Amino acid sequence: MVISKTIQLHADPTANQQQMCIIDITHQVEQQVTGTDINSGIVTLFVAGSTAGISTIEFESGLLSDFQGMWERNAPKNIPYDHNRRWGDGNGHSHVRASLLGASLVVPFNDKRLSLGTWQQIVLVDFDNRPRSRQIVLQIMGE
Amino acid sequence: MVISKTIQLHADPTANQQQMCIIDITHQVEQQVTGTDINSGIVTLFVAGSTAGISTIEFESGLLSDFQGMWERNAPKNIPYDHNRRWGDGNGHSHVRASLLGASLVVPFNDKRLSLGTWQQIVLVDFDNRPRSRQIVLQIMGE
Amino acid sequence: MVISKTIQLHADPTANQQQMCIIDITHQVEQQVTGTDINSGIVTLFVAGSTAGISTIEFESGLLSDFQGMWERNAPKNIPYDHNRRWGDGNGHSHVRASLLGASLVVPFNDKRLSLGTWQQIVLVDFDNRPRSRQIVLQIMGE
Repeated sequence: MVISKTIQLHADPTANQQQMCIIDITHQVEQQVTGTDINSGIVTLFVAGSTAGISTIEFESGLLSDFQGMWERNAPKNIPYDHNRRWGDGNGHSHVRASLLGASLVVPFNDKRLSLGTWQQIVLVDFDNRPRSRQIVLQIMGE
Repeated sequence: MVISKTIQLHADPTANQQQMCIIDITHQVEQQVTGTDINSGIVTLFVAGSTAGISTIEFESGLLSDFQGMWERNAPKNIPYDHNRRWGDGNGHSHVRASLLGASLVVPFNDKRLSLGTWQQIVLVDFDNRPRSRQIVLQIMGE
Repeated sequence: MVISKTIQLHADPTANQQQMCIIDITHQVEQQVTGTDINSGIVTLFVAGSTAGISTIEFESGLLSDFQGMWERNAPKNIPYDHNRRWGDGNGHSHVRASLLGASLVVPFNDKRLSLGTWQQIVLVDFDNRPRSRQIVLQIMGE
């Protein structure tokens, strides 16, 4: 059985100093899975777009800041990007980060419970440099 | 229902200065999915081999160069690698990069259409230092 | 069909100098897949917890050391982490690394054989700074 759902989000990476937006979507994923007739299987999360990714993290503000710091060291915002030179939208770092993090995550569930650790949340990481709507596709499969 | 397909590619990372080969496989994935009797589900892409990975990116030459630059900063080619010291094949950086990027990607589809963003392409990233054949397995599952 | 299995591991990152623990789980995954009635499909591997990840690598000691070196350059242990300042458990780098590597991997199989390359092993990468039990969920789906 396949059930397709979407999560719509408004992400505003300009709202904090590091210009990154990390949104905890665990509860919404749980709700969507619980609302189906599928008891065991997998939920595939996929973010459409090339400047955001999906992963898991312990969602506490210290780590969110640490995670942002890692990105700023490894794919800094203020170095030259050929993408920016060509298109002028200033989000070359956003694309590079998103490609490295990855657009998909697959989470198993049994008896409608996701196999997450206690301190492990599912997050959308929006790397872009302007507010935008985001759509995450949840493909729920199983029996 | 499960349908298994493969994409065969010739990748030549020596053809450009950064010795990385990024190949847009979106169209081939779309064709394989469209050619099945499955309307909704997921396609799992997996590259066999330990010096290549799969991700998504906006496939334009500026970004491809920026992406290569990020890898050269974070897992440089010309630093000492224990792998090279032991095996002499000079591709220690290729292995490290591939393990970080990841060998698998899962993309949902509905009505045979992949859930990709407009500027989001699926790519094979070959990090190796010599030309070679690559095989990507597409496991198409759904109903 | 969906069959859910788990792999239980004891991981001790303190046993080596780099304080990282990379465990080859390929054989256990193969055994679990072979032991089911599913011939073709995918196995989703997911590690519960926010300080470990799953990937593939050529499992030889030179590369394991190179991989650890890459993490130490890109998410060093001995820089300030807000997580450590707040919680005092000293594993801020472990969380950051795990979120970047990713908690899930999906591997196709046909005729009960995983689509791995010859030199490509599946690994649990435990980034934490203390010995602990790890549980990996294997969701095996197919027909």
